[in-house]
Amino acid sequence: MSLKGMSIISIRDMEKEHLEEVIRVAGEVKRGKHKNFLKGKVISTLFFEPSTRTRLSFESAAKQMGAEVIGFAGSDYTSVKKGESLGDTIKTVSGYCDLIVMRHHLEGSARYASEVASVPVINAGDGANQHPTQTFLDLFTIREYFQDFSSLKVAFLGDLKYGRTVHSLAYALSLYKTTIWLISPDLLRMPQFLVEELRANGSSVREIDNLEQIQETFDILYVTRIQRERFGDPQEYMKVAGSYRITRGVIESLGKNIKIMHPLPRVDEIDFDVDTMDNAIYFKQAHNGIPVRQAILGLVLGTI
Amino acid sequence: MSLKGMSIISIRDMEKEHLEEVIRVAGEVKRGKHKNFLKGKVISTLFFEPSTRTRLSFESAAKQMGAEVIGFAGSDYTSVKKGESLGDTIKTVSGYCDLIVMRHHLEGSARYASEVASVPVINAGDGANQHPTQTFLDLFTIREYFQDFSSLKVAFLGDLKYGRTVHSLAYALSLYKTTIWLISPDLLRMPQFLVEELRANGSSVREIDNLEQIQETFDILYVTRIQRERFGDPQEYMKVAGSYRITRGVIESLGKNIKIMHPLPRVDEIDFDVDTMDNAIYFKQAHNGIPVRQAILGLVLGTI
Amino acid sequence: MSLKGMSIISIRDMEKEHLEEVIRVAGEVKRGKHKNFLKGKVISTLFFEPSTRTRLSFESAAKQMGAEVIGFAGSDYTSVKKGESLGDTIKTVSGYCDLIVMRHHLEGSARYASEVASVPVINAGDGANQHPTQTFLDLFTIREYFQDFSSLKVAFLGDLKYGRTVHSLAYALSLYKTTIWLISPDLLRMPQFLVEELRANGSSVREIDNLEQIQETFDILYVTRIQRERFGDPQEYMKVAGSYRITRGVIESLGKNIKIMHPLPRVDEIDFDVDTMDNAIYFKQAHNGIPVRQAILGLVLGTI
Repeated sequence: MSLKGMSIISIRDMEKEHLEEVIRVAGEVKRGKHKNFLKGKVISTLFFEPSTRTRLSFESAAKQMGAEVIGFAGSDYTSVKKGESLGDTIKTVSGYCDLIVMRHHLEGSARYASEVASVPVINAGDGANQHPTQTFLDLFTIREYFQDFSSLKVAFLGDLKYGRTVHSLAYALSLYKTTIWLISPDLLRMPQFLVEELRANGSSVREIDNLEQIQETFDILYVTRIQRERFGDPQEYMKVAGSYRITRGVIESLGKNIKIMHPLPRVDEIDFDVDTMDNAIYFKQAHNGIPVRQAILGLVLGTI
Repeated sequence: MSLKGMSIISIRDMEKEHLEEVIRVAGEVKRGKHKNFLKGKVISTLFFEPSTRTRLSFESAAKQMGAEVIGFAGSDYTSVKKGESLGDTIKTVSGYCDLIVMRHHLEGSARYASEVASVPVINAGDGANQHPTQTFLDLFTIREYFQDFSSLKVAFLGDLKYGRTVHSLAYALSLYKTTIWLISPDLLRMPQFLVEELRANGSSVREIDNLEQIQETFDILYVTRIQRERFGDPQEYMKVAGSYRITRGVIESLGKNIKIMHPLPRVDEIDFDVDTMDNAIYFKQAHNGIPVRQAILGLVLGTI
Repeated sequence: MSLKGMSIISIRDMEKEHLEEVIRVAGEVKRGKHKNFLKGKVISTLFFEPSTRTRLSFESAAKQMGAEVIGFAGSDYTSVKKGESLGDTIKTVSGYCDLIVMRHHLEGSARYASEVASVPVINAGDGANQHPTQTFLDLFTIREYFQDFSSLKVAFLGDLKYGRTVHSLAYALSLYKTTIWLISPDLLRMPQFLVEELRANGSSVREIDNLEQIQETFDILYVTRIQRERFGDPQEYMKVAGSYRITRGVIESLGKNIKIMHPLPRVDEIDFDVDTMDNAIYFKQAHNGIPVRQAILGLVLGTI
């Protein structure tokens, strides 16, 4: 059950016990219980696809605990240009470090990398597929406010069709039988097999297309961006976008205890003047990337 | 009056006492008095616009004193591509580090960043506007040769219209009532309101268009590049460029004590065979970026 | 004879004693004899031209031994864009660090850099010219299997005309009078003056165009990539490429003791299913880049 030596590719590889272990250890790390536990380790951050937030979060997390970091951002700066296979790159870099953090635009690339690497691989996003450390930091942030996930009521809002963040978090919560609302325009509903899976895991799931249809209070509104490009007709987009935009008024109508989460980056789906409300916890959520990733690195490397 | 916790955005925010404090502490750092005072700190270098010299100087400065550095160079590798606002990027990165060093092509961007960040921001250049650490290292370099700034005579040569380096250094020197010559082609004269400000601060300022018009000896010739693109007519550029080019002969005519400074990078406004003359102090000036930036980082973080 | 303070530009600057020194010390480093010997040093990695493998190898090597690393990858992120000369970049960066590792597309650039730098320069590849640390790691890897280079029989296969790796390694081995086969299509034969030089150094050299022409057993097959673009006629390329492709069958025909080396990246000149054979030592070879580069850094900086 230990994460030691494991690659972290998908939240679907995790037992509930793994989730609890990461949440618990991340809490200890955040409270300052563990120091410098990555000293002497070299971590590679291979970002074949750019991602400021995730890369900087991993690098800061690693360096704060004493690790050395090597890597690149953007596939321009790799031998890939010379026609090298991903497998050869991974095998070579395996010899330079103790652990690989990798982002790549191809779904399944992280799984493949973990199979050829001689060191553990942490998936920092493989296309539209998986981004498990995001799910861990989401769970950790929720736990900071709500001890019991099974009595929790969470609404996901926005693009539920393509958003890997939502798919993974909803899956993880369903292991706890959390009550879930899925709010999206018809075009961007969560794929039916995923909805079925949440239900099979024991969650109560309701699909609606408008926030106002929820009559009871709930705990968390998890907002995601709706990309203009998903709509053929710009008119259609304009019509829809407005009703998925979170303002101070919307939040006030949801009750004073509602927590607003967002994986970031945000474009305009949450008004900037919401940022100062206590309900807005999306920057805290982003900052929790540090202790959560430190916990994962320490657990995988067996140094915590 | 302490710099602790302050953002360093513009030299115009500084009191003369701040300038003296930085110069004094940078001297101590250069003499090896303070060691490892950035240990345990994480510094972000966010270069939305590339700059080898400034970025490497900050990173070397920080790392030599024990800091960890995270960051990026070039806006390709940021969430900005995905439409994220600068404010959100800064708020997020604030949670990953203790201090942000930032270069951005938009004037005012550093000021804005300092207002949303929860950590101090050091402006490493915001468009044509400000680059205060360059001014600090210029002042520090001058002080290595001249104790008393008020009796100093400094000539600025080249593009005085767009050059932020010149604007800032001239402003700082005017706080000491330094005597200032401004030598430029008519098209590239210093904006009149800046000239008036230097005078209002107590400096004696003379504007001329040719080095030969200076009949008395002076101490420092601060050279800047004239960009070809500033001239509509290439003929006009060719005519002008020649008379703003510094050769061994020019330097010999200025007297053996003249010091030649330049913010670098240089293109062809100073002949390469000038480099070996004792008068040429522009590489020393560049290298002083290390202790000066270390002093600023230590003062702002309160660890020196 | 000591490497202390020397720039490492070309294998041709090295005495046999230097080669032995690096091989010996790299062995000590690999066995864990020297620890943390780059502590307090700042190393610049200036990659004007991208190279994942070499850059990450140098950075991991340096950081594992306690060095701090600054640098860039890709000339986009340098003042070169603003028209700065390479000499000025090198002079400036010299003031920020203790040693420069540099890759540049121009032949001779590393030599030139070493002449203007005030710190040692290690050439990490200057165009088609030299890449001496690759040769050192090749020699070190060979020594792990074969104590006596003079009785060794080595075959080089592929593009022997343009491959700087082959030129340098063959030159180094010729100092030991190693027996050398050169196997290439006619179009890609090693330049005649280089062949003569190997012979002048005392090596027995035979040029052939096909592996099957070797009737006796030999020790090492060093494979390099044949670039499609070298051939005007695609048909010509196809005809040739096939006979320079290494498969399990080819290796079995060469005898069970043959070692297969490759500088990587590989495209398709070695079948992927060869990787699991004991004969394939090219990933070990790549991984030896770490101790070999650590030894070179320590010897040049005089800290080992």
